[in-house]
Amino acid sequence: MPNLFKNRHFSNEADPIVMTLNELTKQILRKKSYLCVGLDTDPRLIPDSFKQEKDPIFAFNKAVVDATIDVAVAYKPNIAFYEALGPRGWESLQKTMEYIPSSVFTISDAKRGDIGNTATKYAQSFFDPSFCGFDFDSITVAPYMGKDSVEPFLQFDNKWVVLLALTSNPGSLDFQLLEDGAGVPLYQKVLEKSQEWGSVENLMYVVGATRTDYLAAVREVAPEHFLLVPGIGAQGGSLEDVSRIGMNKHVGLLVNSSRAIIYAGENTYQDAKREALKVQEEMSRYLELYYKG
Amino acid sequence: MPNLFKNRHFSNEADPIVMTLNELTKQILRKKSYLCVGLDTDPRLIPDSFKQEKDPIFAFNKAVVDATIDVAVAYKPNIAFYEALGPRGWESLQKTMEYIPSSVFTISDAKRGDIGNTATKYAQSFFDPSFCGFDFDSITVAPYMGKDSVEPFLQFDNKWVVLLALTSNPGSLDFQLLEDGAGVPLYQKVLEKSQEWGSVENLMYVVGATRTDYLAAVREVAPEHFLLVPGIGAQGGSLEDVSRIGMNKHVGLLVNSSRAIIYAGENTYQDAKREALKVQEEMSRYLELYYKG
Repeated sequence: MPNLFKNRHFSNEADPIVMTLNELTKQILRKKSYLCVGLDTDPRLIPDSFKQEKDPIFAFNKAVVDATIDVAVAYKPNIAFYEALGPRGWESLQKTMEYIPSSVFTISDAKRGDIGNTATKYAQSFFDPSFCGFDFDSITVAPYMGKDSVEPFLQFDNKWVVLLALTSNPGSLDFQLLEDGAGVPLYQKVLEKSQEWGSVENLMYVVGATRTDYLAAVREVAPEHFLLVPGIGAQGGSLEDVSRIGMNKHVGLLVNSSRAIIYAGENTYQDAKREALKVQEEMSRYLELYYKG
Repeated sequence: MPNLFKNRHFSNEADPIVMTLNELTKQILRKKSYLCVGLDTDPRLIPDSFKQEKDPIFAFNKAVVDATIDVAVAYKPNIAFYEALGPRGWESLQKTMEYIPSSVFTISDAKRGDIGNTATKYAQSFFDPSFCGFDFDSITVAPYMGKDSVEPFLQFDNKWVVLLALTSNPGSLDFQLLEDGAGVPLYQKVLEKSQEWGSVENLMYVVGATRTDYLAAVREVAPEHFLLVPGIGAQGGSLEDVSRIGMNKHVGLLVNSSRAIIYAGENTYQDAKREALKVQEEMSRYLELYYKG
């Protein structure tokens, strides 16, 4: 299918980086890190010191980005947190996104899932700066409605879909693990079918870290794709297991941590930096041990 | 589970109507109509006459509401269309929602699906006016992430979840019809499982009208729930079949039409009114024929 939309980067940078598969791997190897920092920024949870700022949400995010930019290869704002603040929430998000350099992969964690024209509107909202001012590299998408709810997002040049496959919440048991007559669970069907729609160059999967037992099964069906792995840190899950089992020739992993980093302490810059560095040091070891690029 | 949030109606009305199951049925019988009008308002598709208005989107929606209020029992704004316009899109939507009287059921067609705290944020955005100014009666939700992605929405007093079950798009074939070892398709599992989380008083299902052959199967698993049926009008599907097979003792149907009504002609008020009335006259007949309340 042809790409209908050309990437128009909104960045202030003279020569912004385009986040291709190779570029992402390059950034990971440069920073010796595959850490994604989740920006689940909640006005009730940020330290008091930010509350007198004009835009407390942006001020907090800026501190988190400053603290983690050397070791984070991706940022993932949780869109619900901004949407719940009304128009000023979207403005805080816009400022945050403009502040993040193009060398970092950005994920709009919106879990959208609708068809055709509607899906295109959602894609424009997050991918095409002429709509809402956003120029995210990727968006999380729910697979329930099938092909015509995913393909519209794949029409955008140099943009990625991060498709829900096997999530880390208790409710993932309700439907994602349901097996067909041949014993193939739904999440595997999603992995198989969606590879007909997108490629390793524009499609990633969400696979929860609380299920390292399933990660090997995921890698059998999707050996080359990047996986976005939540469930490290506050939600538990072994980073070493995920790294050993999940790493591929592109590295192929983005491991997310939200609360454990951004709410690590009252001194956001110092505390987030310390926690992010701890994770990066661990990742650096696992890259040496398990990455065969 | 206890309801954590009390309904706080934002309406200007002295004595706003609370949209309970009984109230919805009452409104349907009063208007002799189960028509839901989809507000998929696109700046490129509205007639030129609205384009010089200060807020063309709201002006168009106002004309549609004025034209259809006597025969529509529900309005369903497609959130993507407003989101893609940035902050001013949300303002147009706010004005639209404030304009719709509380006697009409309102559906935020957002197809959200995320867990716990994040789901609560989405629910607050659309249900609790103190967040974004919205006081929708319901929201469409995707089931892929399971129980903990649906229950947070059900915590709100007098608010409804409209859960995706069997949609009307071609991609619905990809996963929704996948069968387990016993031949039970995924959409039926969704119907069965979700009835453990919500009741006929706060849970509806999306069931596409292009699949009337499946509607009987849906009614076997969910005989008493309301169904939101898209796919009438522009998308095809027989209103008589849907009505005959789908009607239950609460009426139990909201049949949506978007483009066929709102873009019926250049004179929005007159043309939308004519098309909506045509649908209502048909519905009035089917209520006489098939409703055994």
